[in-house]
Amino acid sequence: MTFELLATDGAARRGRLTTGHGVVDTPVFMPVGTRAAVKSLSPDDLRDAGSQIVLANTYHLLLRPGHELIQELGGLHRFMAWDRAILTDSGGFQVWSLSKLRKVSEEGVEFRSPIDGAMHFLSPELSVAIQHALGADIVHPLDECLAYPATREATERSLELTLRWAQRSRAEHRRGPAAQALFGIVQGGSHADLRIRAAHETVALGFDGYAIGGMAVGEPKPAMYDLTERVAEILPADRPRYLMGVGKPDDLVEAVARGVDMFDCVLPTRNARNGQCFTPDGPLVIKHARYAREAAPIEDGCPCYACRRFSRAYLRHLFMAGELLVYRLLSLHNVTFFLRLMADMREAVASGAFGPFRTRFSARYAVSSVDVSLDPISEVD
Amino acid sequence: MTFELLATDGAARRGRLTTGHGVVDTPVFMPVGTRAAVKSLSPDDLRDAGSQIVLANTYHLLLRPGHELIQELGGLHRFMAWDRAILTDSGGFQVWSLSKLRKVSEEGVEFRSPIDGAMHFLSPELSVAIQHALGADIVHPLDECLAYPATREATERSLELTLRWAQRSRAEHRRGPAAQALFGIVQGGSHADLRIRAAHETVALGFDGYAIGGMAVGEPKPAMYDLTERVAEILPADRPRYLMGVGKPDDLVEAVARGVDMFDCVLPTRNARNGQCFTPDGPLVIKHARYAREAAPIEDGCPCYACRRFSRAYLRHLFMAGELLVYRLLSLHNVTFFLRLMADMREAVASGAFGPFRTRFSARYAVSSVDVSLDPISEVD
Repeated sequence: MTFELLATDGAARRGRLTTGHGVVDTPVFMPVGTRAAVKSLSPDDLRDAGSQIVLANTYHLLLRPGHELIQELGGLHRFMAWDRAILTDSGGFQVWSLSKLRKVSEEGVEFRSPIDGAMHFLSPELSVAIQHALGADIVHPLDECLAYPATREATERSLELTLRWAQRSRAEHRRGPAAQALFGIVQGGSHADLRIRAAHETVALGFDGYAIGGMAVGEPKPAMYDLTERVAEILPADRPRYLMGVGKPDDLVEAVARGVDMFDCVLPTRNARNGQCFTPDGPLVIKHARYAREAAPIEDGCPCYACRRFSRAYLRHLFMAGELLVYRLLSLHNVTFFLRLMADMREAVASGAFGPFRTRFSARYAVSSVDVSLDPISEVD
Repeated sequence: MTFELLATDGAARRGRLTTGHGVVDTPVFMPVGTRAAVKSLSPDDLRDAGSQIVLANTYHLLLRPGHELIQELGGLHRFMAWDRAILTDSGGFQVWSLSKLRKVSEEGVEFRSPIDGAMHFLSPELSVAIQHALGADIVHPLDECLAYPATREATERSLELTLRWAQRSRAEHRRGPAAQALFGIVQGGSHADLRIRAAHETVALGFDGYAIGGMAVGEPKPAMYDLTERVAEILPADRPRYLMGVGKPDDLVEAVARGVDMFDCVLPTRNARNGQCFTPDGPLVIKHARYAREAAPIEDGCPCYACRRFSRAYLRHLFMAGELLVYRLLSLHNVTFFLRLMADMREAVASGAFGPFRTRFSARYAVSSVDVSLDPISEVD
């Protein structure tokens, strides 16, 4: 994998990743293909929306259908019929957020499967080996995620474990196929000096790119922006930077302004399933009675299939009736919206107009009164 | 609407309907777009599967979102973004099967909405007027459906009411747009002489086509085949014949052999959502462990998107994980299978080879041990 930095505008960056499965233009948003599928969307839907890379969750695939099965069937790309790039996480975040019973030791983490109650063990070596078996283009070392807030002591102990695991992961990765890239993950909770220390020590180990983990877990938004900015300043300019699990459209713009290149979040697909549609004028909730007779599409000028073919009135009808088609159509729109926002940012950075873009976007996006929060998890994603 | 009979082979017929929304080659299977959407499929999916016509349910659209709203938004074709032909039923069957509280009088039928408990009244005139407002290409008169079994007396009383309603519907229809066709519905329960009487009297009234209603409601299969054959013999050769709500692949072949031209059934989409996939070797149940590592598609040589792109192993994984994408993929496959079966029958009739086709199909299709029944209604369709 190679990364070229094509342009900068302030801290904002326009870049290009070249992977074994095609080019990825950055800043990029990665739709989340939790269990080898982006919920309700087909690979062709993702391609039509402009996606060059998707994320898949090691934790979920390990539990079902298992990485050996996927490897036997030719790897994750063939399994899910997606020939563009795939990034996998290490499984650490889901062990932390989804497995009720888990036990962390120096060796790794033991956890109970929520599917069948079986005990599983994940070590840094095993996590990397699983990601190699899946054949992801970008893989991650096992890390420990702490709940917010955490004491300084707990955070320090945790980030040191994450750093030792990062070293072991790097060693395991060197035994794998050369085509796969390994990113380091910067932890450090909400303590600025620990974040800075984690950034320096992760960079010292040396990785193909750098993820910022453990963000958007409950800390105030200004803290997230500030920590992101301070970590990004430390990361090497010639490597991609990935802010894990973020975020809302305004978060994406603010993080790009601070030098982040890559993002992922279940927001566009999960909130679509609850009827929330993103637009440049802020989100709208399709079930509102005011859309019952509206012939207009969700977003004027949006090139997605939902907007080209259907009225708000029809989509509202499908949503009220619980018709399965609507989940796909709204997901398609939201993913298209997120990917167009990234394309607009890339163009703004390339033309040196990111500042005015950011101002214009924020002013217009803020008009909506709809509360955007990540909807509660109703299904695993 | 015009109907041309292009070829016959025994009682089997190859024909062509020309509607205000394109040509419909018969024998034809109509996917069911219950509430202005064929469950989980988009209009483009239906077009890719080869569909020239879909059915929509007057009863469901009357209750939600209402025919006035659909008319205000330009009619059903524009509302659901489907520019090919649409056939609507009268609502009678759903009043009978879905509304717990209903009261039939000479004037019409009063029933309670299962959505909000509101009382509604449907008369023959209103049913036709609603279907005109929707803008369907083929509409139907309100009819009464009887449960099986029913006494001779009850059946006779009921079919006489249906015939009086058919006359009123025809009168109302003549006040509507000329582009819409009105089919008559032959009732008569499982009493052969009453079926024959109903067929003669419906034909005497004169309609653009003839539906055979109240079949596949519990009567033995030989009785259904026999009654269909005897009714079809009476219907005029120059008008299309439609066997309502049928059916399974082998039923389609047997009914075409008896002179039927049109069919509809929720089977391909409803059973898809329960993991049942139709193939020339009979249906298969995707969740079976034997498919866990199968790289083959559902059906070799099937041109549908699910078969061109995905393995049985991947589809099984999606089904076991409850991923929304799988409902669309299996529905797409099943609808494609039904439409290809009809295309094969059209070709067999046109080339005078329907007999051998029927023998070959039955022998091969019967090998599966999977029980095909219409799965219970989990949602309204």
